[in-house]
Amino acid sequence: MLIIGELINTSRKAIREAVENKDGEYIKQIAKAQFEAGANYIDVNCGTRVYDEVEIMEWLVNLVQEAVEAPLCIDSPNPLAIEKGLSLAKYGQPMINSITAEKERYEQILPLVQKYKAKVVALCMDDTGMPETADDRMRVVRTLHQNLTAAGVPEDDIYFDPLVKPVSTGDNAGLEVLETVDLITKQYPNVHKVCGLSNISYGLPNRKVLNQLFMVQTMTMGMDSYILDPLDKTMMGFVYGSQALLGKDPYCMNYLTVHRNGLYA
Amino acid sequence: MLIIGELINTSRKAIREAVENKDGEYIKQIAKAQFEAGANYIDVNCGTRVYDEVEIMEWLVNLVQEAVEAPLCIDSPNPLAIEKGLSLAKYGQPMINSITAEKERYEQILPLVQKYKAKVVALCMDDTGMPETADDRMRVVRTLHQNLTAAGVPEDDIYFDPLVKPVSTGDNAGLEVLETVDLITKQYPNVHKVCGLSNISYGLPNRKVLNQLFMVQTMTMGMDSYILDPLDKTMMGFVYGSQALLGKDPYCMNYLTVHRNGLYA
Repeated sequence: MLIIGELINTSRKAIREAVENKDGEYIKQIAKAQFEAGANYIDVNCGTRVYDEVEIMEWLVNLVQEAVEAPLCIDSPNPLAIEKGLSLAKYGQPMINSITAEKERYEQILPLVQKYKAKVVALCMDDTGMPETADDRMRVVRTLHQNLTAAGVPEDDIYFDPLVKPVSTGDNAGLEVLETVDLITKQYPNVHKVCGLSNISYGLPNRKVLNQLFMVQTMTMGMDSYILDPLDKTMMGFVYGSQALLGKDPYCMNYLTVHRNGLYA
Repeated sequence: MLIIGELINTSRKAIREAVENKDGEYIKQIAKAQFEAGANYIDVNCGTRVYDEVEIMEWLVNLVQEAVEAPLCIDSPNPLAIEKGLSLAKYGQPMINSITAEKERYEQILPLVQKYKAKVVALCMDDTGMPETADDRMRVVRTLHQNLTAAGVPEDDIYFDPLVKPVSTGDNAGLEVLETVDLITKQYPNVHKVCGLSNISYGLPNRKVLNQLFMVQTMTMGMDSYILDPLDKTMMGFVYGSQALLGKDPYCMNYLTVHRNGLYA
């Protein structure tokens, strides 16, 4: 299980304000807290800073690495910001969020994956637009899997993101993702699967509960990485509990450890 | 989704005491509370009363039916207690918990299923003992499915219970159940699947959390009925939330209704 801490994102009010106020201590504190709560990677996303994104990426990446020796997930629509982040990342293997099967995006991001030997989130989207069904998503998975492996990217570095859409806009939105995860797990057992969770609950009440449930559901189908808030103790408790119930935690050792450390208190 | 309220069971201290004190009001109150909380069936189990089980079954069944016009799940190791309960059940189609593929048990229970046109929980167990793997369970499922349908029991009345064992006694205990549910769903799409949840967490801390997570996991694989405590608001909230995310709640109407009624408050 790979947990990518999602909190350092300028679309979040607290981070936006910290960036505006040059409050580096807050950024470092959030990076440290996520790492201590169990995040394996720290996501850095300042995509809302259209005019100074590259500069802000540099500032954030350096701060995060002052706080924790954690690998980073460099998350941006802008290849220049991604390259800036990758060029500064110094702990472990960096991750790029994300490549797609859109021609322009693919050609911009692939060289960065190769140059930095990065892990890469591969979003199930191509030039035909957002996918609806599991079939739509698997068509993109096949294309990306073929092209990325042909380009020398190890399967273990590929993290397919099925692209989660709100169940409020279509009853089958969750089901199509679950089916996609199942199909990827069976057809490509050596790649990883990742997603964010908050889209699923958009437009509905009790979003945290729905996000937690969708985490459990997707993990049951084989999802093995999440971009989430590791400071949500309920969510993290569910991650470890689900792992134990799925036979992925020998003798429930991790589960018992986080229990003793008070995660379920 | 079919919810069987599990609380009226003399293995529970409060019910044991109510039976000993002939506190019928408490029994009626628990029956009513479960029904109002969303239970479709009320389970009645006094299997711990070895010497007067038939008499206590009669007392409990009559009380429950004074409190609510709900169908009953008559739950006992003793065919005489089951027949007593069935003979008194007067609302809707009764349910028997349970038949197995053990020769003696099968021959005792089948005539009751037929006579009372009852729904029946079919436990994945035969004379070779408790199952370990999904294969063990599917062997029993095939036998029971063949024999029950040949005996005229409609598939819609059959509820296979994969028999949940503690994950603390074997890392794969949960996984084997999940695989069984998946296989039954694919091979026998017209039967139902049911289970109790508390066995899974036996011997581990935070049992409620693990039971809730295992409910979400099994439902993701196609489980469509549970024997559970409907007064556990978190559990019931997870039932409705999971249903919505699985596309089984058109326009999330049930989810929104229970939300408005304060289930998640």
